[in-house]
Amino acid sequence: MSGGSVDRVSLDISIRETKTNVQPHQNPSFVLRAIKDVAFEDRPVPQLRDAHDVRVHVGQTGICGSDVHYWQRGRIGDFVLNSPMVLGHESAGTVVEVGDQVKNLEVGQRVAIEPGVPCRRCGYCRSGKYNLCADTIFAATPPWDGTLAKYYIVASDYVYPIPDHMTLEEGALVEPTAVAVQIAKVSELRANQTVAVFGCGPIGVLCQAVAKAYGAKKVIGIDIVQSRLEFAKTFGADHAFLPPLAERGVDPIEHAEKVAALIKRECGLEEGPDVVIEATGAEPCIQAGVHLTKKGGLYTQAGMGKENVVFPMTTACIRALTIKGSIRYTAGVYPTAVDLVASGKIDVIRLITTRFRFEEAEQAFDLVKSGRPDVLKVVIEGVQ
Amino acid sequence: MSGGSVDRVSLDISIRETKTNVQPHQNPSFVLRAIKDVAFEDRPVPQLRDAHDVRVHVGQTGICGSDVHYWQRGRIGDFVLNSPMVLGHESAGTVVEVGDQVKNLEVGQRVAIEPGVPCRRCGYCRSGKYNLCADTIFAATPPWDGTLAKYYIVASDYVYPIPDHMTLEEGALVEPTAVAVQIAKVSELRANQTVAVFGCGPIGVLCQAVAKAYGAKKVIGIDIVQSRLEFAKTFGADHAFLPPLAERGVDPIEHAEKVAALIKRECGLEEGPDVVIEATGAEPCIQAGVHLTKKGGLYTQAGMGKENVVFPMTTACIRALTIKGSIRYTAGVYPTAVDLVASGKIDVIRLITTRFRFEEAEQAFDLVKSGRPDVLKVVIEGVQ
Amino acid sequence: MSGGSVDRVSLDISIRETKTNVQPHQNPSFVLRAIKDVAFEDRPVPQLRDAHDVRVHVGQTGICGSDVHYWQRGRIGDFVLNSPMVLGHESAGTVVEVGDQVKNLEVGQRVAIEPGVPCRRCGYCRSGKYNLCADTIFAATPPWDGTLAKYYIVASDYVYPIPDHMTLEEGALVEPTAVAVQIAKVSELRANQTVAVFGCGPIGVLCQAVAKAYGAKKVIGIDIVQSRLEFAKTFGADHAFLPPLAERGVDPIEHAEKVAALIKRECGLEEGPDVVIEATGAEPCIQAGVHLTKKGGLYTQAGMGKENVVFPMTTACIRALTIKGSIRYTAGVYPTAVDLVASGKIDVIRLITTRFRFEEAEQAFDLVKSGRPDVLKVVIEGVQ
Amino acid sequence: MSGGSVDRVSLDISIRETKTNVQPHQNPSFVLRAIKDVAFEDRPVPQLRDAHDVRVHVGQTGICGSDVHYWQRGRIGDFVLNSPMVLGHESAGTVVEVGDQVKNLEVGQRVAIEPGVPCRRCGYCRSGKYNLCADTIFAATPPWDGTLAKYYIVASDYVYPIPDHMTLEEGALVEPTAVAVQIAKVSELRANQTVAVFGCGPIGVLCQAVAKAYGAKKVIGIDIVQSRLEFAKTFGADHAFLPPLAERGVDPIEHAEKVAALIKRECGLEEGPDVVIEATGAEPCIQAGVHLTKKGGLYTQAGMGKENVVFPMTTACIRALTIKGSIRYTAGVYPTAVDLVASGKIDVIRLITTRFRFEEAEQAFDLVKSGRPDVLKVVIEGVQ
Repeated sequence: MSGGSVDRVSLDISIRETKTNVQPHQNPSFVLRAIKDVAFEDRPVPQLRDAHDVRVHVGQTGICGSDVHYWQRGRIGDFVLNSPMVLGHESAGTVVEVGDQVKNLEVGQRVAIEPGVPCRRCGYCRSGKYNLCADTIFAATPPWDGTLAKYYIVASDYVYPIPDHMTLEEGALVEPTAVAVQIAKVSELRANQTVAVFGCGPIGVLCQAVAKAYGAKKVIGIDIVQSRLEFAKTFGADHAFLPPLAERGVDPIEHAEKVAALIKRECGLEEGPDVVIEATGAEPCIQAGVHLTKKGGLYTQAGMGKENVVFPMTTACIRALTIKGSIRYTAGVYPTAVDLVASGKIDVIRLITTRFRFEEAEQAFDLVKSGRPDVLKVVIEGVQ
Repeated sequence: MSGGSVDRVSLDISIRETKTNVQPHQNPSFVLRAIKDVAFEDRPVPQLRDAHDVRVHVGQTGICGSDVHYWQRGRIGDFVLNSPMVLGHESAGTVVEVGDQVKNLEVGQRVAIEPGVPCRRCGYCRSGKYNLCADTIFAATPPWDGTLAKYYIVASDYVYPIPDHMTLEEGALVEPTAVAVQIAKVSELRANQTVAVFGCGPIGVLCQAVAKAYGAKKVIGIDIVQSRLEFAKTFGADHAFLPPLAERGVDPIEHAEKVAALIKRECGLEEGPDVVIEATGAEPCIQAGVHLTKKGGLYTQAGMGKENVVFPMTTACIRALTIKGSIRYTAGVYPTAVDLVASGKIDVIRLITTRFRFEEAEQAFDLVKSGRPDVLKVVIEGVQ
Repeated sequence: MSGGSVDRVSLDISIRETKTNVQPHQNPSFVLRAIKDVAFEDRPVPQLRDAHDVRVHVGQTGICGSDVHYWQRGRIGDFVLNSPMVLGHESAGTVVEVGDQVKNLEVGQRVAIEPGVPCRRCGYCRSGKYNLCADTIFAATPPWDGTLAKYYIVASDYVYPIPDHMTLEEGALVEPTAVAVQIAKVSELRANQTVAVFGCGPIGVLCQAVAKAYGAKKVIGIDIVQSRLEFAKTFGADHAFLPPLAERGVDPIEHAEKVAALIKRECGLEEGPDVVIEATGAEPCIQAGVHLTKKGGLYTQAGMGKENVVFPMTTACIRALTIKGSIRYTAGVYPTAVDLVASGKIDVIRLITTRFRFEEAEQAFDLVKSGRPDVLKVVIEGVQ
Repeated sequence: MSGGSVDRVSLDISIRETKTNVQPHQNPSFVLRAIKDVAFEDRPVPQLRDAHDVRVHVGQTGICGSDVHYWQRGRIGDFVLNSPMVLGHESAGTVVEVGDQVKNLEVGQRVAIEPGVPCRRCGYCRSGKYNLCADTIFAATPPWDGTLAKYYIVASDYVYPIPDHMTLEEGALVEPTAVAVQIAKVSELRANQTVAVFGCGPIGVLCQAVAKAYGAKKVIGIDIVQSRLEFAKTFGADHAFLPPLAERGVDPIEHAEKVAALIKRECGLEEGPDVVIEATGAEPCIQAGVHLTKKGGLYTQAGMGKENVVFPMTTACIRALTIKGSIRYTAGVYPTAVDLVASGKIDVIRLITTRFRFEEAEQAFDLVKSGRPDVLKVVIEGVQ
């Protein structure tokens, strides 16, 4: 966004104007117009698409790496920004309008918003794999507008009431919690398992906390930043491991084997964890993760990095590993995430390192982009 | 084997000698003494190790790529040839001695031999994953002797009676059939699925035949040798696909995506097979196989090639694939393989392209080593 | 239905009238007005409910026991007839109108109709268990009209094109085939299993044929009518078993144990089938079926009889059985049923024992009500 | 046991005698000689059966209802007392001798004993269902002697070291904990589920505590004794429910439906628990439990009562329930039970209501037989 400050001034002006003009400020939105070009726009108040929809006044929105990715690169995989798009997809808010057929919600209810509503008619939707539906309307995934606006329209069965003692900030953080719950579901996590998680960013530590809440015997957090490991140990991990860097000239795969052996030794494991969750997408972590997994165990790819990586396929084969990819969420995941936060089992507020007002959205994005190790989760307050 | 012919002469001599000497020929064995060095030896008749063991007079033995691999390289993965070892592990024969505790077998019964007997006591054995037992006694896997001898000792629950109408050749081919049945089990094959199999060698076409016997809707065989595809179409495949070679300078992964798209188009698939079985271990097949698999589908690595391959991990993740490795066999697999052969559902005899006598074992190994496309399965008749 | 013949006359009249009148005959329907009171009515042509719906000209309809049950009793479980309802739910026909959003179908296509369209929004629908949705619109289940009319409106993703070589009669019989496919899915049928099915009526023999098509090792059909057993042996069963009647004064459970032992002995089973499917709902069959099931095996309740039965619970517990109930169909079941018929794996036409014209619908119902052992499936041709 | 006190005197005598005699007291054992006839016997010190066995000096033994059942009735199902048998199967102790092949244990280690060692060779053992092995040597199940003796011989992989901070009493209570862990495994318990448990005896409350340790959202304990419900609420249950007794003349099944509805209402459930565990074996609980289970949910029969019960089969079928029986333990269950106790997640010591010395064994059995609601777990200290 060139001239972001100017835009902000103009927004301030328009807000000021609403106090005096006949035409009030409608639906202020934080829009990605093109690569590296964001702006505040005042858009029309969105209308319910059908009788099952609700309109939510967005209260809090977390920023995710994928939001920043679209901002900086304009695409993720096959999803390409071809026209302006409102950003944001981790949100909670208050229901302000309900369609005629909506029975489970009332105006005034505070809700967490599941950001993707599938077609409900394809084979994936009908068989319970709606995360794979090609026709999903997913917030802030081209061409669909996101939630960084005053109002957002969503199907009533894709918003989840939160109890009174939960804040809207917590409601917004149900989204990354749900990502971790889906990863746990894909990983078939069961009680008393040993679980290793590569990565101690928000998703990584949430996976660790979910594993712990699910009764894991031992949770191992792995990261290359010491401060993140310290946090992980207070959030869900029983052990924290800082892998050594590969020495010059050492074959990367050999190094990965060595790291796997070190983790086992340091954490007192004879056989490797039952489940390994890779939440960084980094090639060395993928390689170490496969070598770390127990024979017959399960490895879940949760982080995304390079499209193609060098992968120890023969090891995976000889050890009869199961390798699974996790994407988005499926049925029951959002309710579970709400329950984990509501019950206090996961204290998501501790993830928030900085808060911004809606008018400061670009600064929020800048901060996330910085990748500073002391930044975990950044949230943006909605327009009043 | 240096001086193989000399050894054979000496064997002939010793056989001749048995006619006149007090000390008869005991247990003629085909031994890998060192890399590329095989010889016939006359070893003592092996003794039952415990009261549950049986002694089998080996009747027929198939040769497998792994036998040749030990012969030429002396190792597979962590298994290293450090002392002479009898080769061979795909065998059937006749029970000639049973231990005191053996209730399920009698002398004279014709049986297929499962070549690996696990420890029965470790966590893998106790939980039904005995294929992962580290203490398995596996025929012709260092340091354990194989079945290319007159007699072989094995636990009574790891041999399986075959019906009268099955030949010992068919009994020997139960082993590769069991490999395919295990792959099908790992692949969670269900009726009415679409299944693609990379590779139309013995294991590949057996996987195709197993899929068909399990009620697959459509089975696709893929190979780069036209004659093997022709055979596959008569054995289990509904479609046969010859992938085009990558043009010079084309990125291998792009080529893999193109091959995957071609297979779908040519076989009339909108979405990719439910299950992809990779039975070659070749990197281009692995890459095409992952791109080919339906969203939410299952890819099984059954063939082994390079230890590390370039792998489309992000695709696997976004499509929520399950990638599994298959190794050896688990409970119920051998009985199923016997049933598939006995019922005529799989006509394994059609796989045999050449037969050798025991004294010609080295020629048999030479032929398999040649990798000739017209050679599928080679079997060696046992010593009378 | 009192005065059925009169109604039929009036229908004939009205059909004649359509040739001359401005107001043509619209949507002739076979209506259950009250218990034991059916009539032909001419109803308005039904309108698409939304842009995803299609209108099907019904070509053939099979009659099911549940249709007769509503006719005779007016209720099944919680579903109670409170107002007139068109009967029939096993139908195939031709698409004559498609909604604006329908992409997968065109006017003129011949289709099998899945009779229940769920709400798509509840937890069951979203998780792939749409057979449990409480808000399903299910044909001929109060208060929803059925398919025994000229036209039927249904969601486009709940009709399935059938290939040219399939007749509409076969299309109608996709419904009971789908019931059997769902039972097989619930029963987790895998290849090479031994499967026993109590009942050789249409659903029973279809379960047997599905098991065989799925690669079962041995299929056992059980019935108390010899002629049905004879048919079963030609349709899918490897063995047919006629259980002896209990002698006077013998404890029913003891008799059940005896029957189970007899079946095992006569079919050469050491341990009982891996899967038992109970498709009669009769108490003695339920009891024998539980005693018959192999330790650790699976028993599926598919037939419905008395609400409460005397059940050998301790046996089920000690043997670690899994007992499951099957109801309706879930995702993928109808497509599989179409494939099984289209591929010729199941020759459903052989099930049809009598055909009626639409005007003879009540006679068709009378025949099914009779329960004659030589009547398997009765179909009614639609109005031209 | 007639003349129990006499026997005790004689035991005291024999102990006194050991101080003076050449023949010391060998292996004092508490023996069930016939129905209602127990006695102390001094038996020879048992010998290792093979090189993998260990000899354990038994330190603590819990008494279970099945022990009392054999004492009073002489049989459970097909297991019939035909000759004297040492009682007891819930034990922990100290390893005093190890076979030559034992690698995982040393003399002096304190261990929990899994009471059943299977054959390791049958299809059940090989496929990981060793709880169904017909040739299991199970402590205190005819004809196998139990653990209420000074020494017990067991295979080394069926004893589990306990950490230093665990007492032998806790070690003995690993057995009922393992029963509950197996029930949880059979019930496929996952985090965030709602779980109802009928019965608040030792197994019932342990199931509740396991469910809670596994991350259950809501655990409901049900019992007809208020004091047990009070205990349950402190041990694992979130809700405790005291079902009303059926009024005279009310149909039992109708009453069961009413109880199920009451539980749902009182515990704030819209749909019934995801999982119902029946740990009483009482017919009214079975009936209420089935009616209580959520559509598509899982009901586990863990308690055993009457062989045959009136069962709402149609309800189970229409609701697509899964009904499973749980028996004994499978691989991984004992280690998990040790972990749950060692980690403090389940405080099994709180279950112990009375402690006896070895010489008081019959009094211990009398107390358990009394069925007093204030008696939960009774333990007997071993012979020094």
